[in-house]
Amino acid sequence: MEIEAETRQKAGLFTCGWSWLKALSGKAMNKAVKVAKSTKEVGQEDPRRVTHSLKVGLALTLVSLFYYWKPLYNGFGASGIWAVLTVVVVFEFSVGASLSKSLNRGFATLLAGTLGVGAQHTARLFGEKGAPFALGMLVFLLTTASSFIRFIPRIKARYDYGVLIFILTFSLVSVSGYRIEQLFQMAHQRLSTIVIGGAFCIIISIFVCPVWAGEDLHKLIASNLENLANYLQGFESEYFQDSVDELMIKGGATASEGDKAVLLQGYKRVLNSKNDEESLANFARWEPGHGLFPFRHPWKQYLKIGALARQCAYHIEALNGYMIANYSDIQVPLEFRHKIQESTIKMSSESSKALQALATSIKTMTDPSVANFHVEISKTAINELEIALKADSVVLENVNLLAIIPIASVTSILIEITRCVEKICESVHELSCLAHFKSVEPSVAPEKLQLHHRGSIKPLSDGDRSIDHLTITVSTTSNMNICPMENEISQVPKVGGNQRLNLGV
Amino acid sequence: MEIEAETRQKAGLFTCGWSWLKALSGKAMNKAVKVAKSTKEVGQEDPRRVTHSLKVGLALTLVSLFYYWKPLYNGFGASGIWAVLTVVVVFEFSVGASLSKSLNRGFATLLAGTLGVGAQHTARLFGEKGAPFALGMLVFLLTTASSFIRFIPRIKARYDYGVLIFILTFSLVSVSGYRIEQLFQMAHQRLSTIVIGGAFCIIISIFVCPVWAGEDLHKLIASNLENLANYLQGFESEYFQDSVDELMIKGGATASEGDKAVLLQGYKRVLNSKNDEESLANFARWEPGHGLFPFRHPWKQYLKIGALARQCAYHIEALNGYMIANYSDIQVPLEFRHKIQESTIKMSSESSKALQALATSIKTMTDPSVANFHVEISKTAINELEIALKADSVVLENVNLLAIIPIASVTSILIEITRCVEKICESVHELSCLAHFKSVEPSVAPEKLQLHHRGSIKPLSDGDRSIDHLTITVSTTSNMNICPMENEISQVPKVGGNQRLNLGV
Repeated sequence: MEIEAETRQKAGLFTCGWSWLKALSGKAMNKAVKVAKSTKEVGQEDPRRVTHSLKVGLALTLVSLFYYWKPLYNGFGASGIWAVLTVVVVFEFSVGASLSKSLNRGFATLLAGTLGVGAQHTARLFGEKGAPFALGMLVFLLTTASSFIRFIPRIKARYDYGVLIFILTFSLVSVSGYRIEQLFQMAHQRLSTIVIGGAFCIIISIFVCPVWAGEDLHKLIASNLENLANYLQGFESEYFQDSVDELMIKGGATASEGDKAVLLQGYKRVLNSKNDEESLANFARWEPGHGLFPFRHPWKQYLKIGALARQCAYHIEALNGYMIANYSDIQVPLEFRHKIQESTIKMSSESSKALQALATSIKTMTDPSVANFHVEISKTAINELEIALKADSVVLENVNLLAIIPIASVTSILIEITRCVEKICESVHELSCLAHFKSVEPSVAPEKLQLHHRGSIKPLSDGDRSIDHLTITVSTTSNMNICPMENEISQVPKVGGNQRLNLGV
Repeated sequence: MEIEAETRQKAGLFTCGWSWLKALSGKAMNKAVKVAKSTKEVGQEDPRRVTHSLKVGLALTLVSLFYYWKPLYNGFGASGIWAVLTVVVVFEFSVGASLSKSLNRGFATLLAGTLGVGAQHTARLFGEKGAPFALGMLVFLLTTASSFIRFIPRIKARYDYGVLIFILTFSLVSVSGYRIEQLFQMAHQRLSTIVIGGAFCIIISIFVCPVWAGEDLHKLIASNLENLANYLQGFESEYFQDSVDELMIKGGATASEGDKAVLLQGYKRVLNSKNDEESLANFARWEPGHGLFPFRHPWKQYLKIGALARQCAYHIEALNGYMIANYSDIQVPLEFRHKIQESTIKMSSESSKALQALATSIKTMTDPSVANFHVEISKTAINELEIALKADSVVLENVNLLAIIPIASVTSILIEITRCVEKICESVHELSCLAHFKSVEPSVAPEKLQLHHRGSIKPLSDGDRSIDHLTITVSTTSNMNICPMENEISQVPKVGGNQRLNLGV
């Protein structure tokens, strides 16, 4: 009996242990699959990441030759290790970043090495007992000052790594020089291995599947504009479709849900792109000319466009509040809605087209004049809206003000967005001048750019309807294709002639 | 004659050279003064920067003792240099950053060193000729894989430096091990000096004027809320003052210009604070308990509040468009304006007060229930607005719709802001529960938190005014002070009882 119970107990323990092990291994498997999936996603998101990893491996293996290969080892000795170290810390994702780090490292090492040797010689003047104290003081003073310099924004942006390496090398040389006698030989070996390591990085990053920070910035700005354009396009169809064709929205409801999510994702990326843009622009400045981008390409102008795009994205974020809110509850008087709808649709769709045209212009580096046409139309839409509303103020008497507020807000935010797009258009024109974009045969006839809008509207009156119909001519002259001198960029005249209407907004 | 001409020419050259030198030295002086000024500003902006620089100097000088002092030098040998190197690269501004880097460096070195020695032994199995190839392959594989891992967002955020050091140490050990025979002794010396360098950094950064990333995050979030509150307060007085008292705005025009600039600056800082918040939260996680913050303080909740504050700042950015626009041109019917004004002022001022109360609550780490009162009032203001507008839809007949649009937009954005503030209030409550904020004696009587708004309004009718007056009771119950369980935080019930009115927004 006892033996049976014992056996049963053992069997129970075994089963228990087995199931525990099984659960554990299952969990571990799940976790491993999850990690593998996310790792795969990281690679799929940007396949250049895989290439970069291979490049780092290649560079390090090549540099290791200094150790493996006897003739080279005899030349450089143990300093070869500094080449390996340099490759590891200096090799970055983009050419600009690698170049910036290599050059910073090289010059900082040279400067700090020289100063370190100087400090050594100065310290020796204080005798054997005084030398350590003098050296200590010098190290303290210089490292304190350099550490502080790293907080200055301009230094931090471009030379942070250089100052770090300066502190590092200066303390290493002045401290180790105190022991090692063959200081000059060591300094020479160290510097030359650093130069070799840096050169490896630069050569491999430039010639093996290069990733240019400048090109990335260029594409990022264009795709940001595209994201904004997509949102506006999606907004127009989402917001106004139901009143245009109620059947259509019901049929396409599931499709538009997915689209909406994608559109949302897009503009939200613009909201937080400031840091990325700035660091890319920073690295781009270090890069040599490549492809379509010469050495002194106007990278700063991209930041200007980026800031305006972000401004536009903030407005879209406000607009998005109305998309998320259940606007099917809005009981806007149809009469009012129809009056306002045409101009609003025109504003959003033309702004969207203008942004799309500007994005294409940046992408293809061609003249952005096509966008002017859409900007002008979106601006006349503001006009038309004003005219329509002025005319309507008499007609709509029993309007529920509560119902008007949301649609009025949407309209007014769209007006702000239209103005923002106009500013973006201006600064893309500036970029096109600075970077000498190719001019193309305009697909829109030039006379179209000189718009004359002729409309028949009812005059504003206070109950007195005896005045006849009045014809107002709104003339919009496009002066966006006037290219300013490169150094006069801050004095570029404001776009749009006599057409900037005050909606009181 | 000739000599005279020559003398004159010489004198001319001298004068020319002298004035050139003078101009040059003047320019240099100007530049130097400018640099000195900006450097001084950097120090004044945050005096802890000066302290930090002194701390770095101190740490480096102390670590240099390993070289200067003979007994220590004999113990560690040339490896002492690694202590200096560690201090330079690991010493960061905040305790969290220094700790994160030190620990990353320490563990990565240990792991990579062990693996490197293992790689050495494995390579030796391939014979003298095969060893370099085997080692090369191993270095290539491991460094490629590690470089790729650095792209995974979660690794990048917390262990980027660790992986870098892993690559570095692994290649150094496996490569140099190929030459140096006393590998173990060297590895031991190197590791111990790194530990000593890291320990120096940690001790100095914790005990000498510590800068806690967690505390900075805490203060940053509170000041962000304050900035938003300031803007709303300023907005209210700027936007509505003129109609309340035209004389006052004329008298205070110059003062308010300066104020406006400061207010603008404030909320704009919130727009781009995402990266700062994230890196501070990241470092804060590494920090031991300090002051009011225990080791596992809910830093993630701060990020949640920060994100909501940013959302609010986006709406404020849209609102700001109306501040910049010349709103004195708005010819809003005074009748309409007066109707809408009371609720709008209430919304913005109460939201501002709520944000201020929340900021104070975070700062003092006390219960944020005081804010509920203001949130509730701001929410009843939305109610009152709806009631007022419904009542007015019949009365205001000849309103110029064009003039209503801007003020309608301001109102509707303010409604969005009010809702945002409500969400911020919720998440500060969550934080207060998670971080066990001190409860205080409420300065507002608890019965006030149970609001009952009783108003007499005209019913909405279409021309038919025969229906008598109707009394609507809007009951608002505050359930914001119910503290959820820590692990149920995602299922917190939405705030506000039956009072969330649909304005169609």
